[in-house]
Amino acid sequence: MPTLHARSALAAESIFSVMSRLAVQHGAVNLGQGFPAGAPPDFLLDALRAGAGVTDQYTAPAGLPALREALAADLGVRSEQVSVTCGATEALHALADALYGPGDEVLMFEPVFDVYRPQAQLSGARPVPVPMTLTRDGWSPDLDALERLVTPRTRALLVNNPHNPTGHVFTPQELARLVDVARTHDLWIVADEVYDELYFAGPPTPLRTLAPERTFTVGSAGKRLEATGWRVGWVVSPVGVSPGVSGLHQWATFCAPAPLQAAVAAALPVARARDFYGELRAAYGARMRLLASGLRALGLEVQVPGGTYFLTALAPGVDARRLVEEGGVAVIPGDAFYAQGAAPEGLVRLAFCKPQEEILRALERLEAYLGA
Amino acid sequence: MPTLHARSALAAESIFSVMSRLAVQHGAVNLGQGFPAGAPPDFLLDALRAGAGVTDQYTAPAGLPALREALAADLGVRSEQVSVTCGATEALHALADALYGPGDEVLMFEPVFDVYRPQAQLSGARPVPVPMTLTRDGWSPDLDALERLVTPRTRALLVNNPHNPTGHVFTPQELARLVDVARTHDLWIVADEVYDELYFAGPPTPLRTLAPERTFTVGSAGKRLEATGWRVGWVVSPVGVSPGVSGLHQWATFCAPAPLQAAVAAALPVARARDFYGELRAAYGARMRLLASGLRALGLEVQVPGGTYFLTALAPGVDARRLVEEGGVAVIPGDAFYAQGAAPEGLVRLAFCKPQEEILRALERLEAYLGA
Ligand SMILES: Cc1ncc(COP(=O)(O)O)c(C=O)c1O
Ligand SMILES: Cc1ncc(COP(=O)(O)O)c(C=O)c1O
Repeated sequence: MPTLHARSALAAESIFSVMSRLAVQHGAVNLGQGFPAGAPPDFLLDALRAGAGVTDQYTAPAGLPALREALAADLGVRSEQVSVTCGATEALHALADALYGPGDEVLMFEPVFDVYRPQAQLSGARPVPVPMTLTRDGWSPDLDALERLVTPRTRALLVNNPHNPTGHVFTPQELARLVDVARTHDLWIVADEVYDELYFAGPPTPLRTLAPERTFTVGSAGKRLEATGWRVGWVVSPVGVSPGVSGLHQWATFCAPAPLQAAVAAALPVARARDFYGELRAAYGARMRLLASGLRALGLEVQVPGGTYFLTALAPGVDARRLVEEGGVAVIPGDAFYAQGAAPEGLVRLAFCKPQEEILRALERLEAYLGA
Repeated sequence: MPTLHARSALAAESIFSVMSRLAVQHGAVNLGQGFPAGAPPDFLLDALRAGAGVTDQYTAPAGLPALREALAADLGVRSEQVSVTCGATEALHALADALYGPGDEVLMFEPVFDVYRPQAQLSGARPVPVPMTLTRDGWSPDLDALERLVTPRTRALLVNNPHNPTGHVFTPQELARLVDVARTHDLWIVADEVYDELYFAGPPTPLRTLAPERTFTVGSAGKRLEATGWRVGWVVSPVGVSPGVSGLHQWATFCAPAPLQAAVAAALPVARARDFYGELRAAYGARMRLLASGLRALGLEVQVPGGTYFLTALAPGVDARRLVEEGGVAVIPGDAFYAQGAAPEGLVRLAFCKPQEEILRALERLEAYLGA
């Protein structure tokens, strides 16, 4: 039999899928993979039910016009800048195709969201990790290292803000420095802002407002509207470079799911009008504080996130695989986010986009497991 | 500003999108792009409405278990062989990633469905067209040319059966010869069988039943259930090589749209039980005959398809762009399907997955245009 192509080595099941599978298998509380436990809001589901039978055939690769317009209004950009994709994952994939290839280097902050590295590698480029440092004061990007790591081969800087897994929200000063580096070395900026509405202190600054000429913004309806399975994401390209993204995405998936695009188009202005995101922040903020104080009461060191629905903690000596099997709690081991550097001893990521009861149950189980 | 990567040259808007756009712009009857004019069947929409709020978060990359099982039952394979993707387009994309790369060659019959070439090129491989010949008896694959075109670099043979745009259904003898070539030269077979239920004479033979050890089958819920915008497709891999496909697809889109996967899972057995596909064949067969006889009455030479919802015809001297603008009918010009060989003079593809009134209106307009 012929063999698969060498790039199939990148096809391993991710730690997120592994942990979700083990969680089901062992009846564990799943604070691992980042998806809300409940259903999406009614105004989104109602839009889907009302639209069934109306928008079911191919849309243009760039997206349903109504959705491109709704996004343009929501984000304060022009609809021609918007390319709709099958989730933010495909948005990032299309950008990897459009922006880099063999011989190129892509800077990304480590700990790093798991899809960035294989996507860069599939495009032929080399992912270059830039360390985030963990101190008693929390996480911060090492911007001196960033400058040092730029080479003539560097094509792009991938910035995830708010940052998964650390929850770090880049300060305006940090962003200004990033933009400065990108301008000095003529780099594209890929701003993965899927958690743009999920912040607990000040709102993150969209990078496109600081460097409109070189920033591609990535967003996700799944993250915003608690519907991670819907696979509706987007890229906002700088004015004038948009067709490249939609044009490459057409060869990967042709278009995003039409009935879900239509429902998201209807739901986006409703979410804004009802302050749905504000309510989400309040609800998630409360769960975040519950989880953080519970973990601290168990003696763990916790980094309070500025955004996302994740927090990190140090649980030295805890093995995530044994924890899900023996302790009945699924978390993501920190080393899943490291390729080059070493994860801080005992680092774990916990998701708090889960009901309060589940968080409380996880804390009880952790207490029993750590006590034993 | 930095430039886009060279592969962005592949990002041009496809002729299908161009023609659909022009059709809207000029109020033309759209017999161009292959999507049904109407809504999907009620049993599919009911499943979607009933399921809204139940399956909205990430599924495993390989797909919702219920859908993998429904597909396994429908296709007579094991559920572990099934990878669910965002449409057949993404299935083909994941296979291009999994099977070939720089230095490899991929055989594909020309005229060729437009995504095969750019997908091969994005993977770094070289698409090698194998001619289909048009005679008075219709289309047939040149299998002697196929043998001649195999080189030590050939990795895979891409077979689309029933074949878009020609409507050719490969005979068992032709398929046996293809399998023989693939076995002799140890090639993968990618069998794009998205029109597996759309045939007008005998049913096509699934290639996986002839060469189970090396055949990847690609299918599409959008094509089967008249919901081309839904983006639910699949790959059936040979036993034992399945994880590669789902593993690569996870970096492109993570998973297919969850609520639509659930609805398709519910609808597949219903479609089978009600003989929905049989009804579709009857309805499309009638429209095909209407279009074919109408075109013949206008003096065009028509190739009657054995499957798909397309037919080809020879309309020498007709320019597809002028036809949509001045004649009010959108068709796809034959040369859109040719990269190497030359299209037969005046070749056009027409879709008949449209209501009878539209087909009649298109025939009237064509008569007026050709008469003028
Ligand atoms: C930082 C980041 N970017 C992108 C994604 C993918 O988003 P989507 O579900 O829209 O593909 C995730 C999902 O966890 C994420 O955490
Ligand atoms: C031969 C062939 N394969 C694949 C596809 C794509 O199918 P899907 O809409 O499921 O991506 C098409 C669509 O026209 C097609 O004609």
